[in-house]
Amino acid sequence: MEKTEIENVFIEKLLQNDKRTVGRAISIVESVDEKSENLLKKIYRHIGKAHRIGITGPPGAGKSTITNQLTKLFRNQNKTVGIIAVDPTSPFTGGALLGDRIRMNEIGQDPGVFIRSMAARGSLGGLSKKTIDAADIFDSAGYDYIILETVGVGQSELDIAQASDTTIVVLVPESGDSVQAMKAGLMEIADFFIMNKFDRPGSEQALSALKSVLIMRHHDEHSWVANILSAVATNDTGILEIANEIEKHKNYLIKENCLIKRRSQQAKMRIKEIVEDKIKNKLWNENGNNYLNSTLESVTINSLSPYRIADQIIENFKNQL
Amino acid sequence: MEKTEIENVFIEKLLQNDKRTVGRAISIVESVDEKSENLLKKIYRHIGKAHRIGITGPPGAGKSTITNQLTKLFRNQNKTVGIIAVDPTSPFTGGALLGDRIRMNEIGQDPGVFIRSMAARGSLGGLSKKTIDAADIFDSAGYDYIILETVGVGQSELDIAQASDTTIVVLVPESGDSVQAMKAGLMEIADFFIMNKFDRPGSEQALSALKSVLIMRHHDEHSWVANILSAVATNDTGILEIANEIEKHKNYLIKENCLIKRRSQQAKMRIKEIVEDKIKNKLWNENGNNYLNSTLESVTINSLSPYRIADQIIENFKNQL
Repeated sequence: MEKTEIENVFIEKLLQNDKRTVGRAISIVESVDEKSENLLKKIYRHIGKAHRIGITGPPGAGKSTITNQLTKLFRNQNKTVGIIAVDPTSPFTGGALLGDRIRMNEIGQDPGVFIRSMAARGSLGGLSKKTIDAADIFDSAGYDYIILETVGVGQSELDIAQASDTTIVVLVPESGDSVQAMKAGLMEIADFFIMNKFDRPGSEQALSALKSVLIMRHHDEHSWVANILSAVATNDTGILEIANEIEKHKNYLIKENCLIKRRSQQAKMRIKEIVEDKIKNKLWNENGNNYLNSTLESVTINSLSPYRIADQIIENFKNQL
Repeated sequence: MEKTEIENVFIEKLLQNDKRTVGRAISIVESVDEKSENLLKKIYRHIGKAHRIGITGPPGAGKSTITNQLTKLFRNQNKTVGIIAVDPTSPFTGGALLGDRIRMNEIGQDPGVFIRSMAARGSLGGLSKKTIDAADIFDSAGYDYIILETVGVGQSELDIAQASDTTIVVLVPESGDSVQAMKAGLMEIADFFIMNKFDRPGSEQALSALKSVLIMRHHDEHSWVANILSAVATNDTGILEIANEIEKHKNYLIKENCLIKRRSQQAKMRIKEIVEDKIKNKLWNENGNNYLNSTLESVTINSLSPYRIADQIIENFKNQL
């Protein structure tokens, strides 16, 4: 078979949700090279049907349990689910997450479910790009729901909102004061909140505290109002309500013509990121780096300003782009 | 007078440390435009003599008090000091920092001291660039020491290390468990630590805890070993030892030929950042943004891959660079 033919067979199998091919496709996408880009370009016209759900929140809030229960519920409705669990490589949370992965084995055996863990590997910009790429693979393979799950640390929760149609922030009663410390960003990205472990003491107070923070958010009569749902995910309490809220948000996005606006905005950010990454890769390839290193003596010894060197590098780059 | 002549008079006054000119020069640098770049290019050959000290740590650790006391000590040695205090715009710490600024009035009256506050304004990349630019202004004006002071949150402490010859991390006994939560990054950047407020209960235990973390850092016989100094900055205890440790580190850098290596490495990062910023500015100028916006329909309606659009944008950009 010719190369293009092999590729076409691969894509055909991917679109039919052949499990081995889906796994292989995500591995290709994770490696970020020409092959990955080529694949993503080819499948793009097959995507856009899945509903993408982002789940974020502090460590230990129960994000994996919620993902687990929600997946079982979707499966009972005969819907298929692709899950991307982003593991930060932090030594402080690594253990707990590994436990979550093991716990998820229960749904992992289901042929209508595909779970994939991705490491965060430091660079968060890189994370979001690959997460979206992997979601595109699931989307092309026809999964009805794609759940992106990540610990809300640093930049990652903003990345997840950038990749999701519906973004859910999970909190626990004990995160009461962490709510206050939370950057305004987390409040802004949530389409709704889940106060999980609602059987713990102090739950009602934590709920009121969160409500009083949220009430300060401005909205007009047509805009979506972020609700707070309570849940005890470990015994399946509140999961149906979560699924209903997702459905309600999905319908709102379609009815108010927000889905296309949101995805268009996301595409804009994504294109910008791809362009900048490509240019950076070209700028600092072996040649570019050698050139940069060769200029450093001019700075330290001849006192040539970094701004002048920057001009030289850009001039030199023009001919190479 | 012609424009160049006015500029030359301005630079002459700056090099003579005319206070109003120094203040004006930093304002120019903060505004990031052609004028700023032009000024920075011209003064660059006059810089490199000042020793740059970065001071970072959690809120309330006493960074401003240490800066204050250290400055008084340097002044007694007849050295001049330029201070750049980076205020994060966070609503949670804003108040405390304002207090610090007022407290610093004591040294602010001294003609051998120049204090300048800079706002962090969200973008931390932008912060570090402007901080280094402002330090260059002080350097050209002949200040012996430049102190860069910032709260260690997120990326800012890495930025401060990127701008300093000697980086100091200030901790307090109560940050004992925050030490554990601290990203490895903060441990890596410190040339030495100050355990401040050492008269508080639990000081000795906190010191041992920090020591046991540090002992895991690898070093060969020639490498610098990060010490931990204790201090009670409010009553001037330990300040002379801090000044001596700075001197010791400065001498080490010179003797081991590390100063030029460190500054060359910093120049490299700085050049990269300037080049990338300049290219981004050109990419997403009015034309570039309009072009990007015009492509979005192709993504959402015609299902053209963001990767294909990115290629088009780069092709289009070639002719404009």
